Parts: sequence; structure tokens; C-alpha cells
Amino acid sequence: MNYREESLKRHGQWKGKIEVVARVPVGSKEELSLAYTPGVAEPCMAIHADVNKSFELTRRWNTVPVITDGTAVLGLGDIGPEAGMPVMEGKCALFKAYGDVDAYPLCIGTKDTEEIIQAIKLFAGSFGGINLEDISAPRCFEIETRLKQELDIPVFHDDQHGTAIVSAAALINALKLAGKKMEDIKVVINGAGAAGIAIAKFLMEFGVKDLICCSSKGIIVEGDTRFTAPQQELAKITNRNMLRGTLADAMQGADVFIGVSVANCVTKEMVRSMAEKPILFTCANPVPEIHPDDAKAAGAFIVGTGASQFANQINNVLVFPGLFRGALDVRAKTVNKEMMMAASHGIAACVSDEELSVDYILPYAYDKRAHESVAKAVAEAAIATGVNKI
Amino acid sequence: MNYREESLKRHGQWKGKIEVVARVPVGSKEELSLAYTPGVAEPCMAIHADVNKSFELTRRWNTVPVITDGTAVLGLGDIGPEAGMPVMEGKCALFKAYGDVDAYPLCIGTKDTEEIIQAIKLFAGSFGGINLEDISAPRCFEIETRLKQELDIPVFHDDQHGTAIVSAAALINALKLAGKKMEDIKVVINGAGAAGIAIAKFLMEFGVKDLICCSSKGIIVEGDTRFTAPQQELAKITNRNMLRGTLADAMQGADVFIGVSVANCVTKEMVRSMAEKPILFTCANPVPEIHPDDAKAAGAFIVGTGASQFANQINNVLVFPGLFRGALDVRAKTVNKEMMMAASHGIAACVSDEELSVDYILPYAYDKRAHESVAKAVAEAAIATGVNKI
Repeated sequence: MNYREESLKRHGQWKGKIEVVARVPVGSKEELSLAYTPGVAEPCMAIHADVNKSFELTRRWNTVPVITDGTAVLGLGDIGPEAGMPVMEGKCALFKAYGDVDAYPLCIGTKDTEEIIQAIKLFAGSFGGINLEDISAPRCFEIETRLKQELDIPVFHDDQHGTAIVSAAALINALKLAGKKMEDIKVVINGAGAAGIAIAKFLMEFGVKDLICCSSKGIIVEGDTRFTAPQQELAKITNRNMLRGTLADAMQGADVFIGVSVANCVTKEMVRSMAEKPILFTCANPVPEIHPDDAKAAGAFIVGTGASQFANQINNVLVFPGLFRGALDVRAKTVNKEMMMAASHGIAACVSDEELSVDYILPYAYDKRAHESVAKAVAEAAIATGVNKI
Repeated sequence: MNYREESLKRHGQWKGKIEVVARVPVGSKEELSLAYTPGVAEPCMAIHADVNKSFELTRRWNTVPVITDGTAVLGLGDIGPEAGMPVMEGKCALFKAYGDVDAYPLCIGTKDTEEIIQAIKLFAGSFGGINLEDISAPRCFEIETRLKQELDIPVFHDDQHGTAIVSAAALINALKLAGKKMEDIKVVINGAGAAGIAIAKFLMEFGVKDLICCSSKGIIVEGDTRFTAPQQELAKITNRNMLRGTLADAMQGADVFIGVSVANCVTKEMVRSMAEKPILFTCANPVPEIHPDDAKAAGAFIVGTGASQFANQINNVLVFPGLFRGALDVRAKTVNKEMMMAASHGIAACVSDEELSVDYILPYAYDKRAHESVAKAVAEAAIATGVNKI
């Protein structure tokens, strides 16, 4: 099947992938009097007296907007806010199907960081959490950081942390098979946008010490002003041997390669230059950094990609429904590092030691147990770190 | 039943009166590939090429936010944005039940006119229309006017126009029974906030010539600077005899009294001073300007109220679901005067000559035929005035 062509046809037939339904009866005078006027005045006044009641008397507790400015949609780039909406709607459908979260797609018609922050803040009282989506770097860093500081509901930029969480989950299980430890491995990340930077920082939380990031300009090294401000910041905590050069230079002797970059930028020779039992997560979409067959032919031990037609799809659909389910269930006031790490472990734990193999390191995105496992782990971590409000 | 007490209890059990559901299957790898990646790239690019496709390939065509700043919620006043949400959610449930419109409740955490306008504009690409709700005067006038000018989707402030449309519908049928004509009657409106001003202007579109508005300060007359700017504007086109005095003075000889004011401000004496077959729409909530029994005892021919426990409820639930249904069906780029007048006629026409009586001048809010009639009339008026895009 040509998925893109068929998808366009289906979208034209569906005329929307989500809808809003009433949960209460409003078909008689009495029902109207309870769900609407005059009865509704009482829950209104209860919230007026204590704004926390908005989490008990309205759908706020379960409501998350999926917000984009359309600047970094899939691998399509800056295609505009309205054009991002099919992706946002798709996420909303997945939020409901896998997390029972009520998610609204919202696109915002500005690229101005401050305008985006202010507009989202103004509507935050409507929501239990906020999912930022497909906003380009470096603006996405400032937007997420500021909203996390200024709001007391969970704020999560999926392109950064969803990708980081599922990559870490995949790595936990891949290392089990390879018999290696986070502390001992050398990791190379290619692509230093929102996802690459988040993956790098997150893996260091799991104990990775030797980590080199590359952009299209080569190895990112401290003091090299060709790189963006976020990349220069990252260089202060990575590549401590101050290696300079190309991606090929970085990959020599590496145990793990993670690509969130562009198609076909990794060669068989680069794979051959890696350490024993090399692990490659080649997540460029729709065409990976190297075809899995080529990687395997060059000696790759485990290969994961961003695409569903190959084994080991590194798919952040495994993350966001359960992560928000868990956060909303305990009314977490933020999404912290511990909750995100718990999500990785929650995903990894869904593959039993018996099931685990080089072609099955992650549960499938449509495996409901995975989402339940993430939700449970995230809720427990929120409670353990005291950020839960219930 | 104590509706307010019971409603609070029910809201605690419901935990939200609406929810978002998926309209497409996402339970397998293939379904995910069509509704989400990689297939979704194609509808994204189609919208990127032509933004109008967002009305065909996403739910935008049927999506309307119900937006409040919480400053004029029911008769409760400025109770804050979150506290307005039970009303917004209730409207969303009614939008779906009666108009099959997908409506999201949104509250906005500012009272600043410009901030509200800008924030709504930024998110407008997500929506097919915008319903403003419970925003206090005079800010609501500027907000609605500006959004109508600057957006090419229907913008509708229900407190103004919903009330005006259903009041006009009630008056059309009441005058039939009284054997009077719009052109000949003397109308007094008490309460010159958002609703009162909108009713006054709208009735003049129907041919009413003799119309006096009162506020708590008495009759509004041109040149009297005690009144607000919007009231002084209104004074230029009403009360052409330049009458001064109290509400009681205004009501002498009036054929119609419409109250959108406060409880018990109309006496039996005032009703007795009106013209033959007086018509009173006493819409103050929850307690009307005069109890219907007292009005009848003083000679009222027809009495309508805002409350469901009496005959002739003047309820704007009769308006907004069908009005947006009709506007969305033809992708109207605005809501114009003709569409609003058509909505009034659409409602009035739902009561047949055989059914019409002094105790039944309007269909019930939960009568589905009424909403269908409004939708049809509004869509036809949009086409007749050329504001439809499909």
C-alpha cells in the first residue's frame, strides 16, 4: 500500500480523526436544569471559592491540548500551523485510544516565542496538562522551559522528551542483550536539534558518560562557535575528550549510534568501525540513516528505526499517552526527570527476558500493556518525588 | 428538586460533561500508518499547499471553541475563568446534542481586551467558528467586533446575539397572537448591558421603530453622560421622543416589555400602565423582573421568562447549536444580520398556527426540530447573502 496516498484519501473521507461527545444527558427540561442552567451555577460557585475544584467538577483533570506552531512537523519542516493539524489530530486520537486522555488539537499562528508562551499561559486554566508538538529548535527549549516554570500543570514537549524516553527504553533492553552497561559505553548521537539534544542529556541521567554529538557540521566540541547556542551548551557536558572531526571519526569504536538526522548519512564502513556488538537506532523519517539490512550486513548487532516496516520501531507513541495518563491520575504539577526515567523503565519492562531478542527490544506502539505500564511507573515516580497533588 | 445542590453532586460524579473520542481506528500497525505516521504527511502537505483543505482533511470544519474570560457568568458576575468552565462545558454538550458541533470549552486568564483578541486570533486556525461567552460589557463589544473584522470564520457572542435572536423569535409569535405589527409597537427594554443593547438593535432590524431602553439609572436618553459609551451610542437611535424618567415612566403605554435586568424591578402597577394586550419577556435569572402570576394578574397577555419552570422560556439554547450548524455546513465566513434574522424566523416557524397560544410561543429547547429549522434557515441566509464558501 502507498500509505501517503491512501492516507490522503482516508482523511478526505474521515473529515476529522476526533470529535467531542457529551457525557451527560441533555434531552429533557430536568436534564438541562442539572447540566446547564440553573443548576450549573453551583459548581461554578464552588470553583470560584476554590479553583482546585476545577479538577473535580469539570473535565479539566483529563484534558490536554496538543499544541503546534507548525514549524517542525514530522520531517516536513516549517509547513505552517494549519498544515500541522492532521498530525495533532492523530496524536489526539492516540491519546484517547492508548491513554484515555481527552486531547484537543490546537495550532498557533505565530512563530514568536514570547507570543506562544503568553497565549498558552492564557488558556492554561482550561487544561490538566500541555503537550507541545513539532515546534522547531531552539524556540522549543525556551517555550517549554518557561511554561514549566510558570505553570503548575505538566508541560511536555514530545519531540524532545518523548523521543528521549523511548530511545532510553530501547537502549536499556539493547544493552541487556549486548551485555554492556550504560556507564561503560561510548554513544554517538547524530542530529543536534530538539530530539538529539534531549536524548543526549537524558542518557547521561541514566549513567552514560562517554557521549559525542554531531550535527551536519560534524562533531560538536566545546568552544566551536559554528554551533548554535543550545549545541554549545551541550558541548560543555559531552565529548570530554574534545574530539574534532566528522561523524565517521566520532563513530570509530562507538558502542551505540543514535540518529535523529537525515537519510543515508551512515555508511557500512562507519558501522564496521564501531565497537563489538554495535547498536544502531537510525530514526530519520521516513528513510533511516542507513538501511537496516545494510547495517546488519556490516555487523550491526541490533538495529532500531523510526519506521514501522522494520523491527524495533523507536516510536514515541509508546510514551505520551501513558505519561500523561500517569501524570493526570495523580494531578502531577510538573513532569520531572524522575517521571521521565520511570517511563523509560516502564516501557523496557514490558518486554520480558524470554521475549527479548535483537528483533524485539520494544513493545509495539499499539500494545495497551505498554501504556498501562508507563502510566503506573510515571504516577509512582510523581508520588515518590512529591509533585503529585492527589 | 433543589437543582443547584443536585447539580453540584452530579458534577462531582460526572467529572466532566464532555470528552474527546477517536473517530478512526488506531489499533494496528497499518491503521497507525494511515491515521498517523508515515501516511499523515500527505494530508499535511495538501494543507500546506492550500490552507482551505484544513476544512476538508481535519475536524476544523465542525469545531467551535466556547470561550469565556469568566467575567459575566450566568447571573453570577465576575467569578474568574476556571469558574466559568462548568457553563462552557454545558454549552459544549448542548452544541453536540442539538447541533452535532464539536465544541471545546476554553477559558482565558485575562480581562485585557487586546490580550483576549490576540490570543483568540492566534488559535483561530484550529477552528471553524468561534463562540464567545459570558464576557462582560463593554469589552465584549470590542472583542466581538474586532474578531469579526480580522477573522474569516463565524464569530458569535451568544450573550448578545443569542438572546436577541430568541427574543425576536418570541416576539414574532407573540405579536401574531396579539394582532400587532413590529412597525406599530412601543417596546421598552430594561437592562442595557450586552444583551439589552443587542436586543434593541436587533428588534429595529425587524421594523420596530418606537423603542426605549432603560438601565438602573432610568431611561437612556441622548446626551445624558451618566450612561456608558455603548449606551450613549444606543441613545442616538432609540427614544427619539427624548423621554426622560424612570422605568415606570417608560412603560406607560408600552406594548412590549423585555427585561434582561434584575429580579422584581417591575410592579403590577407598571404592567397595568401598559397598552392593550401587553407582552412581557422577563428574562432576569433566576428570578424574573416580575413573577408571571403577578404579571398575568395585572393584565399581561403573554409572559415569557428565562426560567424553565414557567411557560414560554426565552432560552438561547434554541439558537447557538443550529446557528453554528448552519454556518459550518456552508462554511460561512461570518455571521451576518441576515443569518441572525433567519435564525429568529426559523425558531418562530417551529410553532404552527394550530399550536400557537399565549402559553406556547416558542418550541422547547430540547426540540430537535427547532435546531434543524434554525440550521436550515441560517445556511440559506448565508448562501443568499453570499458569505458561504461552499
